[in-house]
Amino acid sequence: MLECERKVEVVMNIKGFKFAAVEAAIKKPGRLDFALIVSEVPAAVAAVYTANKVKAAPVLLDMERTRGGSCRAVVVNSGNANACTGGQGMADARETTGLVAAELGIEEEAVLVASTGVIGVPLPMARLRSGVPPLVAGLAGGTLDDVARAIMTTDTYPKLEQRSGSIDGVPYTIAGVAKGAGMIMPNMATMLAFLVTDAAVDPAWLRHVFAEGIDSSFNAISVDGDMSTNDTALIMANGAAGNVPLTGASAAAAEFSRLLNEVLLALAQQIVRDGEGATKFVEITVKGARDNSEAKRAALTVANSLLVKTAFFGQDANWGRIFAAVGYSGADVDPERTELFFDDVQMVKGGVFAGGDAEARGTEVLRKKEFAVTVDLHLGNGRSTVYTSDLSYDYVKINADYRT
Amino acid sequence: MLECERKVEVVMNIKGFKFAAVEAAIKKPGRLDFALIVSEVPAAVAAVYTANKVKAAPVLLDMERTRGGSCRAVVVNSGNANACTGGQGMADARETTGLVAAELGIEEEAVLVASTGVIGVPLPMARLRSGVPPLVAGLAGGTLDDVARAIMTTDTYPKLEQRSGSIDGVPYTIAGVAKGAGMIMPNMATMLAFLVTDAAVDPAWLRHVFAEGIDSSFNAISVDGDMSTNDTALIMANGAAGNVPLTGASAAAAEFSRLLNEVLLALAQQIVRDGEGATKFVEITVKGARDNSEAKRAALTVANSLLVKTAFFGQDANWGRIFAAVGYSGADVDPERTELFFDDVQMVKGGVFAGGDAEARGTEVLRKKEFAVTVDLHLGNGRSTVYTSDLSYDYVKINADYRT
Repeated sequence: MLECERKVEVVMNIKGFKFAAVEAAIKKPGRLDFALIVSEVPAAVAAVYTANKVKAAPVLLDMERTRGGSCRAVVVNSGNANACTGGQGMADARETTGLVAAELGIEEEAVLVASTGVIGVPLPMARLRSGVPPLVAGLAGGTLDDVARAIMTTDTYPKLEQRSGSIDGVPYTIAGVAKGAGMIMPNMATMLAFLVTDAAVDPAWLRHVFAEGIDSSFNAISVDGDMSTNDTALIMANGAAGNVPLTGASAAAAEFSRLLNEVLLALAQQIVRDGEGATKFVEITVKGARDNSEAKRAALTVANSLLVKTAFFGQDANWGRIFAAVGYSGADVDPERTELFFDDVQMVKGGVFAGGDAEARGTEVLRKKEFAVTVDLHLGNGRSTVYTSDLSYDYVKINADYRT
Repeated sequence: MLECERKVEVVMNIKGFKFAAVEAAIKKPGRLDFALIVSEVPAAVAAVYTANKVKAAPVLLDMERTRGGSCRAVVVNSGNANACTGGQGMADARETTGLVAAELGIEEEAVLVASTGVIGVPLPMARLRSGVPPLVAGLAGGTLDDVARAIMTTDTYPKLEQRSGSIDGVPYTIAGVAKGAGMIMPNMATMLAFLVTDAAVDPAWLRHVFAEGIDSSFNAISVDGDMSTNDTALIMANGAAGNVPLTGASAAAAEFSRLLNEVLLALAQQIVRDGEGATKFVEITVKGARDNSEAKRAALTVANSLLVKTAFFGQDANWGRIFAAVGYSGADVDPERTELFFDDVQMVKGGVFAGGDAEARGTEVLRKKEFAVTVDLHLGNGRSTVYTSDLSYDYVKINADYRT
């Protein structure tokens, strides 16, 4: 993993939310593994789930429960994904939310649940049952930072980001926590992200703006191209700030949308930097595509290519591998128009090597820990940026040695 | 790479074909790198090329020249892919075929060309020009085995396969050579395969049966999921055996088709076994899919998953990663019906862990050098088998260290 400067020193107050995390003995001793986020009043909720057809029990349950657009709490465990656990898994997910609801004195249907960790093993329900009372008691003194720590699996640092803004003079905060990219985690799991804001937001618009933000953040990162059974990103907006509810057609809404996107993108980038074995953080932009969707397809194909990722690890300015990946991405490509840059060093012009000192200067760029790859297809206005890491010995080691 | 028993001890005679290979100093000293296959009479030809939109010059030239369904010769160089070389690349490809045609005294349009090796660097034409006369002179004593050696790049052994059959008592042979899977070769390149047969075959039917055979052989293997700019597979049928030309509607045609498929599959499997850094050879079958195309998509997604490949390398019976890859493949999946086997050990039943001693027995299977993974979706009659290798430290090393 690449080191990541933690910009969040002090967690801001997010009105009307409480947080808690405890050790429920699902993971190894000494690590938080059971967390809770509660809103004091019903909050508008928007969520995006894994597109995997094999969905874990908590995902299936939350999909039902977020349909109404409102919720009160989210309970999360790490150490066990409750995936491929059949009917027992659904019963366990329901029971967990029921226990939390009873302890909080709210309706079970207002409680969401998320899990991350080992797949195919039933949840250790005895431990979860014992964990619920101390978890709820912990709301008195917990922070969002505790939640960030409790949802970690192979993450090497907690991921937290926040922004504040104001609406007609009313201050509000958007804060969020996240863990592990796609399926970079051994034995599966999972990207989880939980955002909270005390701004009042119209539920329908919240769904729209959240889905859009996810598209250019969590859906624009790739560590290994695998997709988990448990991916869940959600935002709760409880209105405790007291503003007039935001909808799409205002300057305040545009500002909220910008801050939300900043939080989402920062969390997504933290995930890539902390990718298993990562030694490089690479921003890949494809522009000049027929449309944005072709640009994204091409950028993700480059980001997922093993040959490209190993070349990044080897600090090899191997533009040919990138060029070939764009070619098989399915995006429309005219090789004779295509240009390719490492940072501002042009490697390819009109489909052929730019020559001169491009090789030497391009290699200098790849020696950096962070750099940008830009491919210009010169076919239209489509543009997309994705973020990825390299593929190192350590990635293979981490993922091959698990359970041995 | 996995060791591969070479079954071909003596190259059979393939009537009316001549072969040659020389050192043209494109690669390091001591290695053949320039090869030629010539038919004494015009041969029916069928070819399949890379689907990459970035196609190397020789591919573009051959696509034009094979449209007529007939050719006389194929000239091949290794060490340089003549890809992303612009107008100069096309001129060089044409010149190479022109030189060979002149030396052979045949039409330039009857000569095909293929290249594999470094991308983005112009062909060393001075060396190719000097190489043509000795190459053509070598036809007097060359063999198909020489061609197999000359097209190697990071391949650790030559790949050659042959079968013989008879049509109404007339004996014939199908033989073929191949190199490197997909883009497993550093700095790009390429899967090349050249087959020859002395059977007389109707050109239209040859195209049909060859494309079909490719689909379940070269298009059913994966080492790293990357696709080269140079992939080319072609077959020449010169009719020197003297049989009545084969078309689809006869027992003899069915026999020819079966033998052709055997040669193609054997070559494709040799390529996977010789995959960079491979320590495992894995046959992945998805059955019970809605249709064959969904089955193939699911099988290839499993074969290309980094998490699955690293688990194979780690000998970890991690069925969850396979299950999840099937889930995000795009194929229709009902988790509650899905079954998964390592060889004959059932790991998953009704979407959940089969329990008992499956873990221990499954791990035993994964310790073998070769094993089968079978996923039964229980949704229809679609079925597909693909072949893949694991992802080892050595894969990363070979592909990261290139050019450094």
